[in-house]
Amino acid sequence: VEDRVYNFSAGPAVLPLSVLERAREELLCMPGVGASILEISHRSKAFLEIIETAEANLRKLLGISDDYAVLFLQGGSRLQFSMVPMNLLGADQSADYMVTGSWGKKALEEAAKVGKTRKVYDAKETNYDRLPEPFCADGGTMDLDPQAAYLHYTSNETIQGVQFSAEPETQGVPLVCDASSEFLYKPLDIDKYGLIYACAQKNAGPAGVTIVVVRKDLAERADPNLGVYLNFNTHIASGSMDNTPPTFAIYINKLVTDWLLSEVGGLEAMHSRNAEKAKLLYDVLDQNAEFYQGHARPDCRSLMNVTFRLPSDELTTKFDAEAKQNGMTDLKGHRSVGGIRASIYNAMPLAGVETLRDFMVDFAKKNG
Amino acid sequence: VEDRVYNFSAGPAVLPLSVLERAREELLCMPGVGASILEISHRSKAFLEIIETAEANLRKLLGISDDYAVLFLQGGSRLQFSMVPMNLLGADQSADYMVTGSWGKKALEEAAKVGKTRKVYDAKETNYDRLPEPFCADGGTMDLDPQAAYLHYTSNETIQGVQFSAEPETQGVPLVCDASSEFLYKPLDIDKYGLIYACAQKNAGPAGVTIVVVRKDLAERADPNLGVYLNFNTHIASGSMDNTPPTFAIYINKLVTDWLLSEVGGLEAMHSRNAEKAKLLYDVLDQNAEFYQGHARPDCRSLMNVTFRLPSDELTTKFDAEAKQNGMTDLKGHRSVGGIRASIYNAMPLAGVETLRDFMVDFAKKNG
Ligand SMILES: Cc1ncc(COP(=O)(O)O)c(C=O)c1O
Ligand SMILES: Cc1ncc(COP(=O)(O)O)c(C=O)c1O
Ligand SMILES: [Mg+2]
Ligand SMILES: [Mg+2]
Ligand SMILES: [Mg+2]
Ligand SMILES: [Mg+2]
Repeated sequence: VEDRVYNFSAGPAVLPLSVLERAREELLCMPGVGASILEISHRSKAFLEIIETAEANLRKLLGISDDYAVLFLQGGSRLQFSMVPMNLLGADQSADYMVTGSWGKKALEEAAKVGKTRKVYDAKETNYDRLPEPFCADGGTMDLDPQAAYLHYTSNETIQGVQFSAEPETQGVPLVCDASSEFLYKPLDIDKYGLIYACAQKNAGPAGVTIVVVRKDLAERADPNLGVYLNFNTHIASGSMDNTPPTFAIYINKLVTDWLLSEVGGLEAMHSRNAEKAKLLYDVLDQNAEFYQGHARPDCRSLMNVTFRLPSDELTTKFDAEAKQNGMTDLKGHRSVGGIRASIYNAMPLAGVETLRDFMVDFAKKNG
Repeated sequence: VEDRVYNFSAGPAVLPLSVLERAREELLCMPGVGASILEISHRSKAFLEIIETAEANLRKLLGISDDYAVLFLQGGSRLQFSMVPMNLLGADQSADYMVTGSWGKKALEEAAKVGKTRKVYDAKETNYDRLPEPFCADGGTMDLDPQAAYLHYTSNETIQGVQFSAEPETQGVPLVCDASSEFLYKPLDIDKYGLIYACAQKNAGPAGVTIVVVRKDLAERADPNLGVYLNFNTHIASGSMDNTPPTFAIYINKLVTDWLLSEVGGLEAMHSRNAEKAKLLYDVLDQNAEFYQGHARPDCRSLMNVTFRLPSDELTTKFDAEAKQNGMTDLKGHRSVGGIRASIYNAMPLAGVETLRDFMVDFAKKNG
């Protein structure tokens, strides 16, 4: 393990080392099974235990009641951009979409192919550095439709690094959340949501499984003539087993939620850790404001993706290269924001963030 | 490895031991990367090399020309049941479907939700024990539409164990094949196909990735207003990277095709091995015809899924239980066929089939 780097990738992203070690240990033979998790039938007793535990862990961590189904799907959050309106947006209805960054924009584009939509907020003019009020002072307001089929928002914009600290108020309209890049970073009040979806490859596992938590009565809206895979009710009725689920990705998700429960101690503890890690980096930005320029407005800074720019492209390239030499990878920001993005999801150890913090301080001193 | 069983599961199914060993070896750290394959960005150099090699291996093994795209998708073959007609079946067209077993039936059901379909063959009356002529003597004929958008068939029916030995003649209609449970078991003449799809969890890897080989000009038929994930052209244009692909499943597919190329020696060699293995079991059926009753007609027996019944349910249960005691698992047949199903995909070693053969001979002697 000597040669493992600190991997600040936005996703697929770092996983807990103990999860990887456990997966390695039983990769040829699951205990008592005589075959690899990669080989066993999804109908086998061993796999049923895994998927049931994965669901039970999520219910426990997030306090999910029986009013909600927990689904393990394929197709990424991108397929959810289509499935959500296909299932929840009736022909005579309209859905509200908040655009707080690149992902919200794409979600809206897909929904507009399916039915009637309204854009209730767009921070494009300031390159998505803010959220609407009350989450961001002077963030501007939303123009909500009280009759909307649902309100869709992106709780953490992975590319821009802006994050909601709480759920937007909807006045009774069902709330749909793309939580892809923050899911499981803190406790949630699930009852506030109609539907939450999250591809696993940030906080919840490897690429290849997307978790959907959906209020069962909302899912009943779906047109029964939808394709079986595209209909949430297929997966609700079959426990995500109508077709072959992505067994290995679900297995890793189960190990990650085991880790959250027994090693981390739950989502309150996870949230404290995450706040502590993010503060280390944002403090450097604030204390070196002439050198580092944070992208997100301070009141909506993400605890997951820390985005900032350096004085020049040359320094950005130098920062990225020297960080790599010091064992820190994947720090280059998305081209639409520029600069640097440090993704510090649940599994990024404090030591990794401390190493980056020290490097940042040092780099500013030497190049400022 | 002492305690590995012979796993005759129909899918997810046995993988080559050398593939599992390699995956285990680098599960914590890909050589030269410093992170697990489960953690690295899909845009990283290391992953790009993997997906490009996976595609190149498939092109080499099957002789796939540049007229075809090779895609790595999520959602299983079940999502393909919808995506194929969504992309290839125009509003003014009709598609022909052959129903030679449970999977062809489901594929047709999904297509009928999307557009106009015709059932050109159905072997339901004899519980799907046969294929149409000329693949099966007295199999009955197909009633093809020369104007069809495409002809869909299931080259190997996993549940019934009937398999086409060659492609049906279509008189110019594009041929679409669900090859899920035989893909890579022998060489193909790709030019005969418009589209081939196969979930990986039988011959090509773990659950979680589905391989689609599609003639690019056919894909151009797709309605541009389809959801991005649902449109083949999205994946063709982006090299299956418009959204996060199932990176680990693609990595294992790459290791499996590496194995086919360098350890097995290509698909001709694989086909010989598969024919040899299947013959061992079918010979037992033929030589013990009063005890074992094969489900598939002899001229369309599958080299992948060997299905047969025993004289009674009690003996079937006993067979399955005693096999398990002897280290052979997952032999119970699907309830719609009953009896026993031995899935002997590419990665099932000859020794596993010999062990089963010996057990079958012995069991018939003792219980016949
Ligand atoms: C907030 C958000 N939504 C959606 C996606 C798309 O997910 P996927 O690539 O699994 O489709 C991502 C990341 O890739 C994301 O960060
Ligand atoms: C021939 C065939 N088609 C389709 C499927 C469905 O694939 P999936 O479960 O990946 O959707 C299977 C097996 O599960 C199969 O054997
Ligand atoms: Mg994904
Ligand atoms: Mg609650
Ligand atoms: Mg699958
Ligand atoms: Mg050819």
